[in-house]
Amino acid sequence: MKPTDMAKEGTELTEETEHMIEKNGAKETENVLSAGDTKEMRAVILSGFGGLNKLRVTKKAMPEPQEGEVKIRVKACGLNFLDLMVRQGNIDNPPKTPLVPGFECSGIVEAMGENTKGFEIGDRVMAFVNYNAWAEVVCTPLDYVYNMPDDMTFPEAAAFSMNFVAAYMMLFEVANLREGMSVLVHSAGGGVGQAVAQLCSTIPSVTVFGTASSFKHEAIKDSVTHLFDRNADYVQEVKKISPEGVDIVLDCLSGENTGKGLGLLRPLGTYILYGSSSMVTGETKSFFSLAKSWWQVEKVNPIKLYEENKVIAGFSLLNLLFKQGRCGQVKTVVEKLFSLYNQKKIKPVVDSLWALEEVKEAMQRIHDRGNIGKLILDVEKSPTPLMASDSTETSEAGEEEEEHEGDSDNKERMPFIQ
Amino acid sequence: MKPTDMAKEGTELTEETEHMIEKNGAKETENVLSAGDTKEMRAVILSGFGGLNKLRVTKKAMPEPQEGEVKIRVKACGLNFLDLMVRQGNIDNPPKTPLVPGFECSGIVEAMGENTKGFEIGDRVMAFVNYNAWAEVVCTPLDYVYNMPDDMTFPEAAAFSMNFVAAYMMLFEVANLREGMSVLVHSAGGGVGQAVAQLCSTIPSVTVFGTASSFKHEAIKDSVTHLFDRNADYVQEVKKISPEGVDIVLDCLSGENTGKGLGLLRPLGTYILYGSSSMVTGETKSFFSLAKSWWQVEKVNPIKLYEENKVIAGFSLLNLLFKQGRCGQVKTVVEKLFSLYNQKKIKPVVDSLWALEEVKEAMQRIHDRGNIGKLILDVEKSPTPLMASDSTETSEAGEEEEEHEGDSDNKERMPFIQ
Repeated sequence: MKPTDMAKEGTELTEETEHMIEKNGAKETENVLSAGDTKEMRAVILSGFGGLNKLRVTKKAMPEPQEGEVKIRVKACGLNFLDLMVRQGNIDNPPKTPLVPGFECSGIVEAMGENTKGFEIGDRVMAFVNYNAWAEVVCTPLDYVYNMPDDMTFPEAAAFSMNFVAAYMMLFEVANLREGMSVLVHSAGGGVGQAVAQLCSTIPSVTVFGTASSFKHEAIKDSVTHLFDRNADYVQEVKKISPEGVDIVLDCLSGENTGKGLGLLRPLGTYILYGSSSMVTGETKSFFSLAKSWWQVEKVNPIKLYEENKVIAGFSLLNLLFKQGRCGQVKTVVEKLFSLYNQKKIKPVVDSLWALEEVKEAMQRIHDRGNIGKLILDVEKSPTPLMASDSTETSEAGEEEEEHEGDSDNKERMPFIQ
Repeated sequence: MKPTDMAKEGTELTEETEHMIEKNGAKETENVLSAGDTKEMRAVILSGFGGLNKLRVTKKAMPEPQEGEVKIRVKACGLNFLDLMVRQGNIDNPPKTPLVPGFECSGIVEAMGENTKGFEIGDRVMAFVNYNAWAEVVCTPLDYVYNMPDDMTFPEAAAFSMNFVAAYMMLFEVANLREGMSVLVHSAGGGVGQAVAQLCSTIPSVTVFGTASSFKHEAIKDSVTHLFDRNADYVQEVKKISPEGVDIVLDCLSGENTGKGLGLLRPLGTYILYGSSSMVTGETKSFFSLAKSWWQVEKVNPIKLYEENKVIAGFSLLNLLFKQGRCGQVKTVVEKLFSLYNQKKIKPVVDSLWALEEVKEAMQRIHDRGNIGKLILDVEKSPTPLMASDSTETSEAGEEEEEHEGDSDNKERMPFIQ
């Protein structure tokens, strides 16, 4: 099946998306093993939208930095729930395949284009990338690159960028978290959930309600105040403890949960939709075309917000960075977060490290909600045959694995950050 | 026409509203001139919902403080756009008439019920009241009463409470105003508009865009950065100066303006609906029954907020105080505001003082958008026959005046705070 058949949503592209694709396209070559004088690198390639069998590691031409870009020898990459949605084409205006997935990485500066003040070869950096992170080398504009704290490891940095920046901006810039407030976060064991819990602990007397699969409770119980099973009726559970609700609801689910979340807010409380993970089903139907019909039911009446003194917000870090040009604001946030890291008030939780070649197993783990904290692709790691027995089978199952994902009882409830 | 005929919305009352009415009812007596041993007071009475002719000043039994209540000898009362909507019955679940309007006043403590620590007879106080403010004496729970700064006059205090508390909470607790941000406020010459402008000036480098009738521009031009005529296309005007929009939109209009306001927001910007003044037309049709049909068109799709990184909020100070029990939070805000007042960073703008007997003329002035700053009912003031020539005619015109108000070209755009 050709990529264009899968990406039905891609036929009518916005100008922005065309720009993104052009940019990606410039770095892509269909003939990955090209002329001998071109340097090559290993990269994860998504050949088309679909199941795990669409992913493979291959060699392709190494990018060189353009003006204003920094070339990074990648050490570690973050794997987010969003990457599963990209794989399935379940995002708005998906780019063309083949592509190299990945939005964040850490590594060492290897070269710079012109006009890239502030960086030197050998710098240890953390970076956002608009795709292409899952490779040995990546180039990205200097606005998306940050010098890492000395004590921070590369896996920590790759676990840090999207999750902590998103958690910080939602809690402090959108919702205005202050002493004595309460927060509900879903998937408390995931990367964002753990970032939210840690950032809440930097403010006195903040109560954190979290949902997570029961088997994670023992591991994460110290990070939140109250933990509920992810299948429990969290509205009832929260109200048992706090009848008047909570001040902030962070919702990575979607559809039927907006009403629930708004209903749980105290007066002047803020509901933030920061992504949807109910949508990963293994089908390639666009998340947004599906979601929009759901949202018909869930549209919000401003007069109700007025009567009830409530706030509803949406948050998409990638849009903020790559479509809305708010790099300066994000840079300020990164600096504040590095300061908290240096004070040892926050520390990214790394669930596990995976070789590029193990990307299918890593994706299966996040799909199955097996992780506590962040999954990292460690570019220098060799595959570990021993631990991959089960998941290798899964990854080779191809379409069968997709059917498994399509089971409605297995709808995902893990967060993603876009 | 009986009040019950007018208040069509009142047939299905919520428990909360019934409570409010019961409370009001306890202080009302239809026989306003009752037995000789009951103390009497002057008060403005709204005999039924409708035009100015429904208002009169009469004597009625003086209330006595219940447990937890403070009895205040009223010196000055605030007149808000909301009071016009109450007069017309254009509020959700309107209470029964006859009633004494008014939600805020200042005066001197005359007596206290049991359990009213913190106040003494003779204290100069500012207070919120759930109706009944426009009288010589009012009783209200101590949670709604605040000792005034020594330098503050009674008219200033009556001009201060609703407008500054609402402006502060919207800017700093809902929207998180910070250095360098930009704010759009409609009716910049009104009580809330002037409070917003002054509070913005306490933060460095805040740009304030305001709309106001052109004849007010000379008087208020120093209080805001950019002023537009209220009939101008403010979206275009703002975008000429700031192509990427503003960080905060405060909207006292309604209906078609929500989309405009959201469209003007920069990423991470906040749109706040704090009331509607497009609805005062002289008809007694419920604001909310009318508004709800408008909002059908204007419901907000959360997925759009997510894609665009935007925030929408509703703010109703009266609901916060009288339905949602957030007196403690409001008290903290009042303390901060008094501190700013004592530092001479803010100062309520009083447009004009009116005797209780001049309430019709005062209402006509706010209806006609003649005011710059706040209209105050000065309880000890005698009517001024000289200046009342035109407006007395208007007030006596009764139904004719209502027709004037009903003219669709005369839709109101003044703020109210509920």
